[in-house]
Amino acid sequence: MSARVRLGLAYDGTNFSGWAIQPGLRTVQGVLEAALETLFQRLGPAPKLTVAGRTDAGVHALGQVAHLDLTPEQLQLVLASERADRAASNPAMALRRRMSGLLGANADVAVTSAEFVSDDFDARFSAEWRRYQYRIADQLSTPNPLRRFDTSAVPTTLDVDAMQAAADTVLGLHDFATFCKARPEATTIRTLQAFNWHRDDTGVLIATIQADAFCHSMVRALVGGCVAVGQARFTAEHLAELRVAARRTGEFVVMPANGLTLVAVGYPPPQEWAERADRIRARRTMESSQNE
Amino acid sequence: MSARVRLGLAYDGTNFSGWAIQPGLRTVQGVLEAALETLFQRLGPAPKLTVAGRTDAGVHALGQVAHLDLTPEQLQLVLASERADRAASNPAMALRRRMSGLLGANADVAVTSAEFVSDDFDARFSAEWRRYQYRIADQLSTPNPLRRFDTSAVPTTLDVDAMQAAADTVLGLHDFATFCKARPEATTIRTLQAFNWHRDDTGVLIATIQADAFCHSMVRALVGGCVAVGQARFTAEHLAELRVAARRTGEFVVMPANGLTLVAVGYPPPQEWAERADRIRARRTMESSQNE
Repeated sequence: MSARVRLGLAYDGTNFSGWAIQPGLRTVQGVLEAALETLFQRLGPAPKLTVAGRTDAGVHALGQVAHLDLTPEQLQLVLASERADRAASNPAMALRRRMSGLLGANADVAVTSAEFVSDDFDARFSAEWRRYQYRIADQLSTPNPLRRFDTSAVPTTLDVDAMQAAADTVLGLHDFATFCKARPEATTIRTLQAFNWHRDDTGVLIATIQADAFCHSMVRALVGGCVAVGQARFTAEHLAELRVAARRTGEFVVMPANGLTLVAVGYPPPQEWAERADRIRARRTMESSQNE
Repeated sequence: MSARVRLGLAYDGTNFSGWAIQPGLRTVQGVLEAALETLFQRLGPAPKLTVAGRTDAGVHALGQVAHLDLTPEQLQLVLASERADRAASNPAMALRRRMSGLLGANADVAVTSAEFVSDDFDARFSAEWRRYQYRIADQLSTPNPLRRFDTSAVPTTLDVDAMQAAADTVLGLHDFATFCKARPEATTIRTLQAFNWHRDDTGVLIATIQADAFCHSMVRALVGGCVAVGQARFTAEHLAELRVAARRTGEFVVMPANGLTLVAVGYPPPQEWAERADRIRARRTMESSQNE
C-alpha cells in the first residue's frame, strides 16, 4: 500500500535541458529524482516522477504538476524528520520541506505544493488541460532586463489585434500537424481551448494558450504563426489555410523556448480522475498500435 | 551650445558592482559610458552621465533616470545613422537606438527612453522623490525561481500587518541616522513620503518606499527593521524608539541588495527644474562646508 503525493513544481528552464531525464544532461526530472534518491537512499529504489507536461529545453514552469508514490517506509522517514505537531497537521508538506532543503532556498527548481491524493490521480493522464504563457518584447515594449530570461525579443513592432485575429482562426478541435514536430506514433489532433493576446502595462505581448494537450513544439509554432501575422508577413486567413493544409511549413518560425512558461494544469473533480486517466491511456495505446 | 538628453534606464543589478564607476569593476555607469565612448570615439571626450539614484552593488532599477549633454558634432553623428523620417520624428530616440545596439538586445542594462530636455533639468538635483520596491519571499510565498534574482528569501513567516504598523512609525520628516551608513559629510535628515507593505497574489511581500532622497543603505535598513517586527523580535513601538535614538544598532539587519529595485524618480514641472536644482545644490554645498 503506497501513498500517492501530488507535487506542484516551478522552475527557471534556462539552465535545464528540459524536463525528461537524459544521461549526462541536467534536466528537471533528473535534479528532482536525484533529491529523492538522496532522501531515501537507505530504503531501496527512490520514487519516480510522472509529470503533466514534459517541457522542452529552456521552457519554464510555474504551475507544473507531478505525482509520485511513497512506500510506508519512505513516508515514515519523511515524517520522522518533522516536529510532531507539523507532521500531524500536514504530512505531505514534510516531503515538500525535505525536498526544498535538498534543492536549496534559491534554486532554479522549487516544490511549490504537496498533497496526498488517491491512487486514481495521474498527473499526466488525469489532466484535462494544460495552460501556457508566451512573453514577447517588441519595439513598443519597455525593456526589462529583470525579465530577459522569460521573455523573447522581436526586433520589430507587432500588431496585437492582427495577432488575436490569427489566434482566433486556430481555436477549436483540429489537426495541428502544421504546428507539430513530426512524431509518427503521436496524434496531432488537439482541442485548442483558449488563445488570447494582450499587452501588459509595460508593453510586453503576452499570449495565454490552453489545450487538452499539446504536441511537440505546438505552442511555440502557434506563437510563431501569430508573430508572422503581427508583422504583416501574411494574413490571419492565410494562417487558417496553413492550418487546414496540416503539414509543416517554412513560412513562419518556431519561437525560442525562453519566452514560454507552463502556468497551470487543470484536473477534473476527484471522482473523475480514474475514468479520465483510463480513457486517455487507452487512446494513447490505440494510437501506438495503429502506428505499428 | 549642447543638447541635454534625459535617459530612462533599467538594469538587472546582479552582475554589477553598483551604479558608480570604479576602476577594475563592472558598474552600470561604466558599461553605459563605455558604450558612449565607442559611439563617439572620433569626436573627443564622450559625454558623462549624471544619475538620479546611485544604486549599490546588486540593486536593480526599472525607472532609473540620468542625463547627458551632446555636442552639436555628437548629435550630428547620431542623426546621420538614422533614416531621415525617423530622425526627424524623434531625434532623441536615435541615441537610444544607437546605445541599445551597442549594449545588445538581451543585455542586463537597457535604455528604456530618451528625450531632449532643457538645460534646467538635472537628473540628480531636480528630482523631487525616489521610489523603491523591496520583494521578500517568506514561508507563505509560492516559490518562483523565475524571480529569484530580484526577491530576497526569509526562511520564516512574516506578519504583514505588524510590518505595516512598523512602517507607519518611520513615515515623515526625521533624522534617519539609525538606518544610514555613517558618512560624515552627508545629512541623514530625510522625508519618508510612503512606506507600504502588501502581499501579491503569489504571497510575495512587497514594500513600496518613497522619499525625497535616501542616504546610504537606508531602504534596506528600513526593510530590515520591519522584518524584525514581522518576525515578532521586537514591536513597532520599539522600532520607533530606535529611530528616535538616531544611531546605528545591531537589533536588525540591513537586508540583502537582491530584493531591491529603484522603480521610479519624480520631477516637478519643467518651470521648476532649475529652481529646485539650485536649491538642492546649495544645500549640499552648505552641508559640505559645515562638515569641514
